[in-house]
Amino acid sequence: VTKNNKDVLKEIRTFFLSKDEQKAREYLNTLQPADIAEILEELERDEEHWLINLLDNETAALVINELEPDLGGELLGRLKEERAGEILEEMSSDDAADLLSELSDKDQNRYLDMLETEDQQDVRELMTYPEDSAGGLMTVEYVAIREDITAAMAIEVLRDTAPDAETVYYVYVINLLNQLVGVISLRELIIANPQSYIRDIMRRNVISVPVRMDQEEVARIVSKYDFLAVPVVDNDKALIGIITFDDVIDVIHEEATEDLYRLAGAAGEDEEDEEDEFFARIKSSLKARLPWLFITMLGGLISGQILSRFSGQISAVVALAFFIPLLTGMGGNVGTQSSTVTVRGIATGQIKIDDIYRVILREALVGLAIGAVLGLIVGIIASLWQNKPMLGVVVGLAMIGNMFTAATMGTIVPLFFRRVGIDPAVASAPFISTAIDITGLVIYSTLATILITHLL
Amino acid sequence: VTKNNKDVLKEIRTFFLSKDEQKAREYLNTLQPADIAEILEELERDEEHWLINLLDNETAALVINELEPDLGGELLGRLKEERAGEILEEMSSDDAADLLSELSDKDQNRYLDMLETEDQQDVRELMTYPEDSAGGLMTVEYVAIREDITAAMAIEVLRDTAPDAETVYYVYVINLLNQLVGVISLRELIIANPQSYIRDIMRRNVISVPVRMDQEEVARIVSKYDFLAVPVVDNDKALIGIITFDDVIDVIHEEATEDLYRLAGAAGEDEEDEEDEFFARIKSSLKARLPWLFITMLGGLISGQILSRFSGQISAVVALAFFIPLLTGMGGNVGTQSSTVTVRGIATGQIKIDDIYRVILREALVGLAIGAVLGLIVGIIASLWQNKPMLGVVVGLAMIGNMFTAATMGTIVPLFFRRVGIDPAVASAPFISTAIDITGLVIYSTLATILITHLL
Repeated sequence: VTKNNKDVLKEIRTFFLSKDEQKAREYLNTLQPADIAEILEELERDEEHWLINLLDNETAALVINELEPDLGGELLGRLKEERAGEILEEMSSDDAADLLSELSDKDQNRYLDMLETEDQQDVRELMTYPEDSAGGLMTVEYVAIREDITAAMAIEVLRDTAPDAETVYYVYVINLLNQLVGVISLRELIIANPQSYIRDIMRRNVISVPVRMDQEEVARIVSKYDFLAVPVVDNDKALIGIITFDDVIDVIHEEATEDLYRLAGAAGEDEEDEEDEFFARIKSSLKARLPWLFITMLGGLISGQILSRFSGQISAVVALAFFIPLLTGMGGNVGTQSSTVTVRGIATGQIKIDDIYRVILREALVGLAIGAVLGLIVGIIASLWQNKPMLGVVVGLAMIGNMFTAATMGTIVPLFFRRVGIDPAVASAPFISTAIDITGLVIYSTLATILITHLL
Repeated sequence: VTKNNKDVLKEIRTFFLSKDEQKAREYLNTLQPADIAEILEELERDEEHWLINLLDNETAALVINELEPDLGGELLGRLKEERAGEILEEMSSDDAADLLSELSDKDQNRYLDMLETEDQQDVRELMTYPEDSAGGLMTVEYVAIREDITAAMAIEVLRDTAPDAETVYYVYVINLLNQLVGVISLRELIIANPQSYIRDIMRRNVISVPVRMDQEEVARIVSKYDFLAVPVVDNDKALIGIITFDDVIDVIHEEATEDLYRLAGAAGEDEEDEEDEFFARIKSSLKARLPWLFITMLGGLISGQILSRFSGQISAVVALAFFIPLLTGMGGNVGTQSSTVTVRGIATGQIKIDDIYRVILREALVGLAIGAVLGLIVGIIASLWQNKPMLGVVVGLAMIGNMFTAATMGTIVPLFFRRVGIDPAVASAPFISTAIDITGLVIYSTLATILITHLL
């Protein structure tokens, strides 16, 4: 609830107490569905019940759409069955399908039976597509016309279908086989000569997406071409739906979160989204994070094994141990920086296939430069602090080697994952920093072993 | 260049060699501006020159818009001055302003002088707003009408202004002071009775954004309400521009990248975007990353200082050193997980102000649970490996304490930053993991010091 909405909440509660339904209705009319949804989440059950009953079916459908699907499903379950059916009927098919997917099989069928036969079929079909595919995002409420009508007739068609269509701003042109042959925007229709035929004014090169395409790819296409909506076709190139920009914006947010979580080794976190269930959230957090932490743990034990082979040197020169957190910490950070920049570069398309050697070379040079600057500083500090010039040399050289491998590995690993078809974001902080810890300690202990006589 | 576009590139080069301009033009007509822009980046100078000359001014403007502004500016500079002016004239004011901002002052004025007086004023004014504010995103090509005209008249107005307007799908209604009093969508205009007055059919509660609003906030509003465009108003509430969804999608991508980079301690990376200048990129990388690495370095030296006070214990029981990378590595990862989830929760609005104690409690419990599970495993391994049961107790307990503080700090620090008005993403990997390294080593060395007699 934003600051502004706190005032709205107060206002609504005043109406609830005074039971002034007329005024409450007028007030609600001035609000956006997204704002009513935010308010709704804050209300008690009796207040919620009262508020929903003040809304007409169309507004109620828009408001429930703005809730997370699981909360929307629960709310629907609390309504009288008849009202719930009326509200579902008002929803666009994709939103109804998303909502019903959250319910138990029994409830799904109960609600589906309330819908008109045609809507029922649409929703049932949409529920069969994977949630994160073009089919899972699309709606079937689009406007399609034939190419042998005039602009004026097309506007008439729009006038009739506008109340139900998800967008009227693109009109798709189909042939007898339902195949997409053209597109014309409402803007073009408006400025066209009313008597001209669609076939003469439509654009014939329509970019469409196949129904099985991954949602991330769909989002990339819509972002690239700045489309308000993109048509979805089946295997026979027949038009079966459209995906509108608002759903694409949701996907972009979702995918950015997913990448962030993957990089931090917390992928899967939040997937359930049941904010109310405190311990369920803890359980899903643990499930998401523990696998990555096991990798880190194994890596840490391997690091320990390396240090144990090196225990003679540490016993002899205990100061060698003081620089372990510095070396591993720096390596982890440089590795995370490089892998983040690389993963994001792949995701946004800034890193292209022909580019990868240049990218690796660049990051390796960045790593060397960082190593040179910080290795010099740390080396001087180590020499002076412990009054052992050679310790400074070991620490400084280890730093250079460590920064170089950290930057290089942070770049190569995600590029490699992508080449073999794994999501590059798997090259996440836990994975990268553990690998870098191990190589860093090998470099450090090797240098110390070689130069041990000078350190005593 | 996508796979598909590789074929297109080949095709275009064939046309270039055969100099068949008629066929090339027909072929280009079948492509989207975004695709032509991708091709353009791959072409040699003489090919580029030939291709741009095949495009009409309007298409050339759309294509140049799809390029990064700095590349677009350079390309414009390579055209004949007259042609460049014609193309600029075709651009919407916000795109022209973005492009000109990339040029030198001298070039800016030269190009501005080529524009018609009115356009020139618009572009000059747009260039005065900060790039990342509502003013920097908006265009002045919107459609505004008065409330005392009919729906049919409004559609006539649209017909006249459509060719120049950025979007015709929202028509804004203004009063004599230019203040926004209502909005009506083209969809509503189309289905309205042609004789009804705008004042009777418009929506009066228009959500607008002030010209100084940060672009991230603008993106949040457009995402929340699913608007195609949002109007921008000045201090006197007068309508001065609109921001369309395609610019908002760009902002969402930009902000997601920014958050990712901040979390990895690489903020500022990529800002220049001059892909061609290899060493310039390295320089900007170093500038972005070194400050964070200095923090890590200082933290690493503090860690070393803590370990040096603990050197008696390490000398006596060298195996204590073996578990340092394990403890710091695990602490860093758990801290990164918690801070990432918290930073993203704040950015998406999932974590609300009233929630913070619950969120902290939840993360603290997650940390404890992780510590309990992994502490037990690591403790047993440590006992058996070194054949010292008490070493297992020290390592296991240190793990529990370390995981708990890591998760708690990873959550509290970004929440604290946000409370005091600093971007929570500053609670990034370098910052958090360094702080956790230090506290983790304090816990470990304290435990080891207390129990040292049992370790010998």
